[in-house]
Amino acid sequence: MPDTQRELATCPRIESGFRLLGKRWTGLIVATLLQRDARFTELAQAIPRISERMLSERLHELEAEGIVARDVDPGPPVRVSYALTERGQALEPVIEALRRWADA
Amino acid sequence: MPDTQRELATCPRIESGFRLLGKRWTGLIVATLLQRDARFTELAQAIPRISERMLSERLHELEAEGIVARDVDPGPPVRVSYALTERGQALEPVIEALRRWADA
Repeated sequence: MPDTQRELATCPRIESGFRLLGKRWTGLIVATLLQRDARFTELAQAIPRISERMLSERLHELEAEGIVARDVDPGPPVRVSYALTERGQALEPVIEALRRWADA
Repeated sequence: MPDTQRELATCPRIESGFRLLGKRWTGLIVATLLQRDARFTELAQAIPRISERMLSERLHELEAEGIVARDVDPGPPVRVSYALTERGQALEPVIEALRRWADA
């Protein structure tokens, strides 16, 4: 069959991946947590221009998606930190590929 | 320096990459054109639920970003087809990494 007639197909799962990471700030939060676990204030400082309200909202979404885990150390003082789950760590090749593309 | 004090940094270029691909349909259009060049109607059929107006708008955006090239064969009949540029083809590792993540 000539190439011009080859059937084109799309994968719905890939679409949901794009939409998740494409949401403003989400990709940057994941890229930052790939460097190391971080507390809320550290994330807020590392990601330029994000508001605390928006960071909080995105972290909740990423928790709901099973990508970020929230860890509470009861202290005192109480310390809340965020880490990538196994599913979140698995995004590293995606982030790396995108970084290489953006740098090229 | 202990890991918990390591400086966190973000890359603005990676953010623009996420926002480009995260826009609804954009990633799917690129993923489809990675399979082969295609005419407008083929793209419209391959991507479920996209409207012709939206497909047209996204293709224009991708042309403006230098990711898609529009080729007009004057015919007759006139035939317009779309292909990835070199910069567009370079997105293949990103799409592949995301596909593997979504499938896992």
